[in-house]
Amino acid sequence: MNRHPDYLLNRVNEPEDIKKMSLDELKQLATEMRQLVLERDAAIGGHVGPNLGIMETAIAYHYVFDSPHDKVIWDVSHQCYPHKMLTGRKLGFLDPDHYEDISGYTSPEESAHDFFEIGHTSTSVSLAVGLAQARDLLHPDSKDNIVAVIGDGSLSGGLAFEGFNNAAKLNSNLIIVVNDNQMAIDKDQGGLYKGLAKLRESNGEDPNNIFTFMGFDYRYIADGNDLQTMIDTFKDVKDIDHPIVLHVNTLKGKGYEPAVEDKMKWHWQGPFDIKTGKSKEKPAGENYSDAILAELGKQIDAGEPVVAINAAIPGVFNLKSFQKKYPDRYYDVGIAEQDSITTAVAMAEAGAKPVVFQNSTFLQRAYDQLIHDMALNDSPVVMIVRGGTIASGSATHQGSFDISMISDLPNIEYLAPTNLEEMISMLKWALKQREQPVVIRQPEKELIHGTPSQDNYSHIKYDVAHQGSEVAIMAVGDFWQLGVEVRDQLQKKLNIDATLVNPKSVTGIDPNYLHHLSENHNIVVTLEDGNVSGGFGETIARYYGPKDTKVLNFGAPREFADNVPLDVMYEWYHLTPEQIVDDIEKVLHSL
Amino acid sequence: MNRHPDYLLNRVNEPEDIKKMSLDELKQLATEMRQLVLERDAAIGGHVGPNLGIMETAIAYHYVFDSPHDKVIWDVSHQCYPHKMLTGRKLGFLDPDHYEDISGYTSPEESAHDFFEIGHTSTSVSLAVGLAQARDLLHPDSKDNIVAVIGDGSLSGGLAFEGFNNAAKLNSNLIIVVNDNQMAIDKDQGGLYKGLAKLRESNGEDPNNIFTFMGFDYRYIADGNDLQTMIDTFKDVKDIDHPIVLHVNTLKGKGYEPAVEDKMKWHWQGPFDIKTGKSKEKPAGENYSDAILAELGKQIDAGEPVVAINAAIPGVFNLKSFQKKYPDRYYDVGIAEQDSITTAVAMAEAGAKPVVFQNSTFLQRAYDQLIHDMALNDSPVVMIVRGGTIASGSATHQGSFDISMISDLPNIEYLAPTNLEEMISMLKWALKQREQPVVIRQPEKELIHGTPSQDNYSHIKYDVAHQGSEVAIMAVGDFWQLGVEVRDQLQKKLNIDATLVNPKSVTGIDPNYLHHLSENHNIVVTLEDGNVSGGFGETIARYYGPKDTKVLNFGAPREFADNVPLDVMYEWYHLTPEQIVDDIEKVLHSL
Repeated sequence: MNRHPDYLLNRVNEPEDIKKMSLDELKQLATEMRQLVLERDAAIGGHVGPNLGIMETAIAYHYVFDSPHDKVIWDVSHQCYPHKMLTGRKLGFLDPDHYEDISGYTSPEESAHDFFEIGHTSTSVSLAVGLAQARDLLHPDSKDNIVAVIGDGSLSGGLAFEGFNNAAKLNSNLIIVVNDNQMAIDKDQGGLYKGLAKLRESNGEDPNNIFTFMGFDYRYIADGNDLQTMIDTFKDVKDIDHPIVLHVNTLKGKGYEPAVEDKMKWHWQGPFDIKTGKSKEKPAGENYSDAILAELGKQIDAGEPVVAINAAIPGVFNLKSFQKKYPDRYYDVGIAEQDSITTAVAMAEAGAKPVVFQNSTFLQRAYDQLIHDMALNDSPVVMIVRGGTIASGSATHQGSFDISMISDLPNIEYLAPTNLEEMISMLKWALKQREQPVVIRQPEKELIHGTPSQDNYSHIKYDVAHQGSEVAIMAVGDFWQLGVEVRDQLQKKLNIDATLVNPKSVTGIDPNYLHHLSENHNIVVTLEDGNVSGGFGETIARYYGPKDTKVLNFGAPREFADNVPLDVMYEWYHLTPEQIVDDIEKVLHSL
Repeated sequence: MNRHPDYLLNRVNEPEDIKKMSLDELKQLATEMRQLVLERDAAIGGHVGPNLGIMETAIAYHYVFDSPHDKVIWDVSHQCYPHKMLTGRKLGFLDPDHYEDISGYTSPEESAHDFFEIGHTSTSVSLAVGLAQARDLLHPDSKDNIVAVIGDGSLSGGLAFEGFNNAAKLNSNLIIVVNDNQMAIDKDQGGLYKGLAKLRESNGEDPNNIFTFMGFDYRYIADGNDLQTMIDTFKDVKDIDHPIVLHVNTLKGKGYEPAVEDKMKWHWQGPFDIKTGKSKEKPAGENYSDAILAELGKQIDAGEPVVAINAAIPGVFNLKSFQKKYPDRYYDVGIAEQDSITTAVAMAEAGAKPVVFQNSTFLQRAYDQLIHDMALNDSPVVMIVRGGTIASGSATHQGSFDISMISDLPNIEYLAPTNLEEMISMLKWALKQREQPVVIRQPEKELIHGTPSQDNYSHIKYDVAHQGSEVAIMAVGDFWQLGVEVRDQLQKKLNIDATLVNPKSVTGIDPNYLHHLSENHNIVVTLEDGNVSGGFGETIARYYGPKDTKVLNFGAPREFADNVPLDVMYEWYHLTPEQIVDDIEKVLHSL
C-alpha cells in the first residue's frame, strides 16, 4: 500500500534501503514514520510516547549498523515500531487491514531482525551480554556489533543492574544505549535518577558517574532526537572493542504535542482522535479499581495505617487519584517488583497496613519475595492482583500464571471474588486480620454486584448459589458467569439441576463441604480463569483422587498464545459453555 | 553453662550488658565470641568467614545502639552468630547440647532482636526501607534507628539495587552498612567491584561513588575490624536524620588463619578440626555433580560450544575444578540469578550450549526469567537444578517448590532422573536437541546406578521397572527408592504385585501409557520429593479425574518446616513406606 509518490517509506523494504538516503530524506522519513505511529495507535491503541521519542535512534541505528548481523535489542520493546517499519514490516503500519499482523513487541517469528520475544522491562542488557558472549565463543573473529537500547525507567529494575554489572566484565564489543527521557511510565523513582540528572546537567562531565564507576566507557549525547548527532555517534562507536554506554537524552512523545505534554497518559493509549488527542474510549463507569481505592480511603480517613504500594504502573489501578488525595500514603517504587513486596513485608511487620498493587504478569518478577519474604514471614501484607485472566493480548504479558504461582505457597490466602461486594468484603477482612498475607484477584470481566456470604475469610466456607444434585460446578472468580451459563445449559440440554458453588479461595479447600458434596454429586467441574496446570482445579482433583467422585478441570493449557481473539482462544481451550457441557455429558455416559 | 570465671560472656545476657564494658573488655569479648563461632561450626558445621569478619561490627552495633528499639537487619543473615550471642542466645554457642536450639539465620521466633526470617541475599535494604517507612508513618516522633548490614557480594543481586534506589528517597533515619570484605562466596563478579575497589584505594575519597551518585550521605571506614573505630562511627551516625551508607572494609574470616587464607572454602564449613582446619567429612566419592561436569568436559573436548553458568555458588556443583580446566567456558554472574537465566537464553539463541547450574531455592529468584525469557522464547537452555528435595534444613532454603514452579510453565521439559546413567542420558539429549529448554533435577540422595530406557526425551515414554497389576506406583526422581520400598511392602503386607513406574518427566504426561494403565490397575500412587500442591501428582490426578482409576498423591504439604530431622519430617508428611501402604490399603478397602 503506497501513499503519495514522494512518500519516502515507499522506497524502504529493508534497512539497506535507507543507507543511501540523505540527511534531509532521513528526516522526512522520521516525520512519515511518526505519523504512522500515530495513525496505528489512534486506530487500535498502542505505545505512543516511547515510539515517538526513539525515532532518531532507530533510524540512525539502521543507517549506521548492518542488521541483522549487527544486533539490537530493544528493552521491553514497546519502542520497536520504527524498527519494525524499517525491517520489512511497514505494511503493519501503513495499512489498517494489516495492523493486526504485527505485534506491539519484537518477535523473532515476524522478522530475522528481531531476536527475542520481549515485553517485560530490564532484560536487554543481560540478553545483549549473552549474545556478545556467544559471538566471542562461536565466532572469535566476528565484527558483529551487539547493541542494547534501554530506557532510564527500566534501569530501576534489578535485572538491569545485574546485566550492567556483568556487561562491564566483557572485553569485547557491546554498545548500551541508555535512552534517557526522564520517565518510566509515570515519573522515575529513586536515587539513581538524581545521579542521572546531574550527568545531564553537566553534559556528561560530572565525575560521579554510575557507568564509569562500573568500568564502562561512556559518552553523553545531549540531543538524541537530532538525527545527525545520532548517526555520528553510532558511526564513532561502531566496531568498538569494549563495552560502552551511550547516555542519550531524548524527548518522550517527540513530535506530538499531547504526548509531550502528558507523558504518562501517552505512554500507551487506546484509540484516539489524532487532531485533538481525545480518547475514543468511553470513560470507565463504576469499576473494581475505584471501589478498592474508595475502601482504602475510608480506612485511612478512619485512622488506619493503610498505604498503597505499586511498581511503576499507577494507571492500571487508577492510583493517580489516590495519590492526589493521600500523597503520604502512596508509594511508587519504580520498576522494582521485588522491592515492592519485600518493603511491604517490612511495613506490615512493623504495624502498617500495606496494600500492594500488582499486575499478574509482572508479579512473576517477585516470586521469591512472595516465598522467602512474604510467605515465610507470614506477614499481613494485602495484595491486589490485576490482569489475572486468560487474555487475548500479547504472549509476553500472559496473565494466567498467578493462580499456580501463588496458590502453591504456604501461609498465603489467595481469594478470588466473583463480584464487587464480595471483593470489598474480602478486602476489609484482609486489612483487619493480622495473621497472614492475603492476595485478592481483582475481577477483570464486567462488573457484577452480589452479596457476600461471609465476612471473615480465615476459614473459607464455599458459597452455594444453587443447590442441585448430580453435577456440581465450582466457578472461580471471573469465571463465575461461565459457571452460571454452564449450569443453565445443563438444565436446558440435559435436564440436570446442577449445583453452583463459589469457592472464593484458590488456596486450600473447604474439606467439610467437599466431603458432603460427594454424597449426592457424581461429577465436580472446576472452572478457573487461568492455567489449569498447578491451578485450583487440580487441588480438587487431588482431593477426590482416592474417591469415586469424578472431577473435570477447565482452564488454559500449558502454552503461550499471542494476539488471539478471546472467543477463538476459549474455543481452542474448550472453554465455551457448549464444550464444557459436552464434556460433562461424556463423563455422565461413562458412569 | 559458664566457663572460666573471667570469661566475659558470662556477664552478657542482653545487649545492655555490654554497654558498661571497657574497650579492652569488648576486645576480649570479641576473642571469646570468635572462639565460640569456631567451636560450634567445628562441631555441627555452619558459616565461618562471615561471622568472624563481622564481629566488631556486631559488638559495636550493640554497644552503641539500643536493640530492639533500634533495629538491625543482617542481609542473608549468615553473619548473625555474634548478634545472637549478644541477644540472649549465647547458650546455643556455649553448650553443644543447645547448638541445635539456635538456627543459623535470624528468626523472630527466637528473639525480639530479630525481625525477619532471612536466608536469601540482597533483601536487607528493602526491608530496612519498609521498617523506616512504617516508623515514619506510625511514630513520626520516633528516634529509632534502622540499620541494614549488607555484604559487598550481596550488592550484585538486583533486589539490593532496587532497595538502594528507593532507600535514597527517604528523608529520615536509615543507616546502611556495606560490609565490604571483597568476597561473595567465591570472588565478587562484575563492574560494581571495580568501583568499590577504587573507593577503598582512595580511602573513600574518589568522587566517582555509586552511593553519592544516588544521593546517599557516605562515609568510608578503612578498618571495620577495629572496634574503637566502629564504635566511634556508629556513635557519629546514630540518630542521623537521613540515609547514609557506611562503607566498611573488613576481613572475611578475621581471627582464624585458614579462613583468611581460603575465603571461599571457609564461607561455610561442615565439621572440622579447629587446630588444623581439616574437614572431618569424608571426601565425596563418585557423585552426580562430577558426572555432569565430566560429560560437559567431554563435549567441550569434542568441539561443542558448551558453557557452564552459575550465580555465585560454584562450590555446590564442584564447578571450581571445571573452571580450572575450562576457564573460558565458565561464567559466574555473581549473585544474580535473574541475569544467569536471561544471559543463558541469549547465548542459546545465538548457538551456544549454555548449562545453567541453579539451586532450587535460589532459582525462585528467576521465575519471571524462566517464563518471559526462557519459556516464551523456547530457548534451548539446559539447566541443572540441585537441592530440589524435601529437606530437613532451614525453612529459608526450602527446596520443595521447584516442581510446581517449573512444571506449570509452557515449553520447558523438566526431567527427574532416578539414577546416574539416566541423568547423563538426559543431559546428552538436552545438549543435542535445539528445540526447547530442558531442566534436569539432579538427584540429592545416595548415588544409584541404572540403565536408561530411552535416549531421546522429546516424547517421554514411562519406564516400567516392574509390571504388576491393581496398584501402580509412579516414583519420581529421588523418590525412586521410596517407590521400590512401597512396592516391596505392598507385596509383603498385602500380597499385591504392584507395578513400579519411572515417569522421568514432571512436565506433561505419557497419555498412551496412562490410558492403558487403567485397564488393569485400580489405584495409581504418585511419589515426588517436593510439594504436592502444584506438583507432578496433581497432573496425574487431573488426568484420571473423569475416570474410575483412583489416584493418591504423596509429597510435602503446603508449609515451611525449619530444622526438622528428615525422618521426623517424613513421618509428619506421611511419607514412610508403612504410612503410604496404609493409605493404599484404605483405598483398596473402599473399592
